[in-house]
Amino acid sequence: MTLTLKILADQLGGLLFDAAGAATGDAQRQQIIGAATLETAGPQDITLVDSTDKIHLLAKSRAGAAIVPPGSGPLDRPTIEVADVHRAFALAIVGFRPPRPAERVGVSPLAVVHHTARIAADVDIHPLATIGADVEIGVGAIIHSGARIMAGCRIGAGTTIFPNAVLYEDTRVGKRCLIHAGATVGAYGFGYKIVDGAYAISAQLGWVEIGNDGEIGANTTIDRGTYGPTVIGNGTKIDNLVMIAHNCRLGEHNMICSQVGVAGSTTTGDWVVMAGQCGVRDHVHIGDRAILGARSGVSNDVPARTTVLGEPAIELRERKLQLATISKLPEMRKSLKQISARLATLEQATFEQAPQYTAEHTAEQGSPVVAVAPATEAA
Amino acid sequence: MTLTLKILADQLGGLLFDAAGAATGDAQRQQIIGAATLETAGPQDITLVDSTDKIHLLAKSRAGAAIVPPGSGPLDRPTIEVADVHRAFALAIVGFRPPRPAERVGVSPLAVVHHTARIAADVDIHPLATIGADVEIGVGAIIHSGARIMAGCRIGAGTTIFPNAVLYEDTRVGKRCLIHAGATVGAYGFGYKIVDGAYAISAQLGWVEIGNDGEIGANTTIDRGTYGPTVIGNGTKIDNLVMIAHNCRLGEHNMICSQVGVAGSTTTGDWVVMAGQCGVRDHVHIGDRAILGARSGVSNDVPARTTVLGEPAIELRERKLQLATISKLPEMRKSLKQISARLATLEQATFEQAPQYTAEHTAEQGSPVVAVAPATEAA
Amino acid sequence: MTLTLKILADQLGGLLFDAAGAATGDAQRQQIIGAATLETAGPQDITLVDSTDKIHLLAKSRAGAAIVPPGSGPLDRPTIEVADVHRAFALAIVGFRPPRPAERVGVSPLAVVHHTARIAADVDIHPLATIGADVEIGVGAIIHSGARIMAGCRIGAGTTIFPNAVLYEDTRVGKRCLIHAGATVGAYGFGYKIVDGAYAISAQLGWVEIGNDGEIGANTTIDRGTYGPTVIGNGTKIDNLVMIAHNCRLGEHNMICSQVGVAGSTTTGDWVVMAGQCGVRDHVHIGDRAILGARSGVSNDVPARTTVLGEPAIELRERKLQLATISKLPEMRKSLKQISARLATLEQATFEQAPQYTAEHTAEQGSPVVAVAPATEAA
Repeated sequence: MTLTLKILADQLGGLLFDAAGAATGDAQRQQIIGAATLETAGPQDITLVDSTDKIHLLAKSRAGAAIVPPGSGPLDRPTIEVADVHRAFALAIVGFRPPRPAERVGVSPLAVVHHTARIAADVDIHPLATIGADVEIGVGAIIHSGARIMAGCRIGAGTTIFPNAVLYEDTRVGKRCLIHAGATVGAYGFGYKIVDGAYAISAQLGWVEIGNDGEIGANTTIDRGTYGPTVIGNGTKIDNLVMIAHNCRLGEHNMICSQVGVAGSTTTGDWVVMAGQCGVRDHVHIGDRAILGARSGVSNDVPARTTVLGEPAIELRERKLQLATISKLPEMRKSLKQISARLATLEQATFEQAPQYTAEHTAEQGSPVVAVAPATEAA
Repeated sequence: MTLTLKILADQLGGLLFDAAGAATGDAQRQQIIGAATLETAGPQDITLVDSTDKIHLLAKSRAGAAIVPPGSGPLDRPTIEVADVHRAFALAIVGFRPPRPAERVGVSPLAVVHHTARIAADVDIHPLATIGADVEIGVGAIIHSGARIMAGCRIGAGTTIFPNAVLYEDTRVGKRCLIHAGATVGAYGFGYKIVDGAYAISAQLGWVEIGNDGEIGANTTIDRGTYGPTVIGNGTKIDNLVMIAHNCRLGEHNMICSQVGVAGSTTTGDWVVMAGQCGVRDHVHIGDRAILGARSGVSNDVPARTTVLGEPAIELRERKLQLATISKLPEMRKSLKQISARLATLEQATFEQAPQYTAEHTAEQGSPVVAVAPATEAA
Repeated sequence: MTLTLKILADQLGGLLFDAAGAATGDAQRQQIIGAATLETAGPQDITLVDSTDKIHLLAKSRAGAAIVPPGSGPLDRPTIEVADVHRAFALAIVGFRPPRPAERVGVSPLAVVHHTARIAADVDIHPLATIGADVEIGVGAIIHSGARIMAGCRIGAGTTIFPNAVLYEDTRVGKRCLIHAGATVGAYGFGYKIVDGAYAISAQLGWVEIGNDGEIGANTTIDRGTYGPTVIGNGTKIDNLVMIAHNCRLGEHNMICSQVGVAGSTTTGDWVVMAGQCGVRDHVHIGDRAILGARSGVSNDVPARTTVLGEPAIELRERKLQLATISKLPEMRKSLKQISARLATLEQATFEQAPQYTAEHTAEQGSPVVAVAPATEAA
């Protein structure tokens, strides 16, 4: 598809400017055949710059024009100014490169669906998916190829299960969720006791419950509870390769970034953020709107609205101070040596004149022995 | 199902008490319809408290009664005291909510089983599993949907392979193992050398051997050896999302928690514990019963019966001391500045009276220049 | 198969020596039935020692003979000296234990291939793989069981997709790549904004592009770009359980070890190495041939040819200095206390004789108050 910049600007509800700051006929008639990011756009593509402090990045792009925030121009090439750059650019992309229509397959005859499963209207079950006994699937849900929905699972309306995700027995998934490829929900919790000289696994009588509007990332794992549910609250989003252990209870609207691990029985409030590669120990509570900084190791409760960072994680302000001080460590060590030398000089000067007291110091292991002349020798 | 507390107590072999410490008729006749954890139990459910120091948590629960350790009561509601709370509670759950009977499917006609595979008696191979050439599967093993058992694998009696797990060629799995969903066993080791200006992969002629009674967590990966086996010893339990690299040889009864990574050719003794998110470098040895604390980065051998922690990991006692000292760093830095000031004051007082020596100190980079008056000026 | 050492040495182009340093008839006639590593070799196997500094490990092995580097012997048993030990040992293994011939299946009638897919000559599509609409697969590619190739994907000639790997829509994979089992390529990027009191997912209009000769490890995840591609350059090797987030652009010949996480929009040059369990924040650039040490947390750009380590990552030299100093911390703290005591002694000695000034120091919080007598009291 080819559009003029004029038509594109009209479709996006934006203001068109040329490099001189006007909307000349030349700019209006310029033809655009695609939309692409700064790195990949060619001379006939439109690109985007999503904030005024990134405008300088445009200079290196081959793009023919750009969608930009209001007041960004005039720039070195035509621009369309819009209030919501991301919304406009997504519209442009969809216009030039319409998304592949989702193929509706209904319940494929090549899927393996247990005769006791209850499948609502308008559900797609792709070839080679398996649906176990007593499973319930809500209206409009999509189960992709290779997904394994084991016995007793409940899947809410409008939820999508991507290829090769596995839901163990009795997993409950709410409405409008996305469960990405390779995610494993409901595997056994990692708890053992030693019986007769070997590890014996704990009870595995629980299950996993995921609320509405959740997202579970690719290859993420959420283990079932020991006796009851491991719970993921409504609206909570979990990235790829995350581990949520048995008996955890995450609140609503949490954002759990990639490769985070949360150990058993830990609970969170609402709107908690865990940045990438955090670890949280078992049996702690993370309060509402707390933020765990990237790669933090959290071994205690975190109060609401608190940001922590580091290993072990402490409050952000403290951690910054700690890091600043650690960076001064080599300097401090030098300083300490110098002070010690100055002190020795002073001691010599002072006590050679007036040796009046006895001091004993136990030299610390590995440090130079502190030489203070005892009274008997100094006399 | 509905049971009276009297009948339940008898079934569990426990002692029933009411809130007054007696076994009154009222308590005996109280009806229970389910068993649930503290957070989820309702007034007609029985719950559990598994140690006396958690008894206070019962106050917040809506549970109608509780299974507790001996000597816990009397409490605010009826209790059944038993020696093994977890065993009794698991029995109660199974009574009220009988586990779904495992559906025996035999070798499903919808599975794809190579004609050279040797399948013992009493094996379940679920629909859409694939079994390669020359595979051997022992008595009573269960292969779930979507599991891929590639050519030459050996699977011991009583082992369960959960959905979508993948065993590359020639993987050996012992008896009574659990291989969870999405686990990948036997993929290529990550070793390269540069040939003609590009990475060329090393030999991939080995395989993986897992002993008896092992557990491999969901989405965990264990790579094949270069020439011979990567070995996981008998009884060793591995949690989700763990990486065991090529040529590793783990001993027996290890416990490897979630998201741990063990680099190539590392070996362990028996009863080693690696807590969550540890990393262990290549070619080191972790001795019998060593414990690697959570998120430790281990770059050296660890002696038997030693606990290490931190990044880089050091002995626990040392690490605690280190952490304590790091927390004092800002204070130490202030202290150092004060001492320096006091020293300057003293130097001035001493050498103004009796300027007897010359001192030169090279000021450290970035620190305030140490002002010591040379003899010529002080004179 | 049984070979004499003489024949084996000839086949490998190596020089045979016995324990006395000669090539006696006894050594020549010694029969070998297999090749195995030091730990697993028996008396009739040949083993390898790949560098002269590991020769001492041979003493503990039961192997009957060893392939060793030139000039290693004479040793305690017969040896074959060759220039490239690994190449020779791989040849020996393949001789004794010929690799299972890859079974050519063509396009299996048990695979589910969309009628619009374009499959080149000599392609294997194993049973129960699924190939979506408009997919293109190049000459000689192999798609294993359970792999899910969604609509619009392009797979280059000679590429192998292992079992249960998932390629979301429009993923492009170059020639001669290996995509290991359980890898998920092209799942949604983890980006949200808050709309009406809940997280709304960002646009998911992009895709993933993997160059030629790439390797993607088992259970690794690479997310699609927001509007355009997430890019993995030619020859770049990625280990297991790695996370590459949306919009990243990795250069050529990168080596990304296990459990590394790279956050969104980060870019790398060529020949970058990221050791195990690193984390790299979003929107940074890692220069050509930079090395990120194991478990580093990288939150800034890294210049070309620079090695960084630590959390936060700093240059290797600095990090070593920092670690050395941290290990001295307890000692420094003791030293500081002793200096403070010595100083107090000196102050007392000096100002008792000649109290000439007033000093005030604000005692730091938590530290012992610094006692300096004011002039009025000292007088």
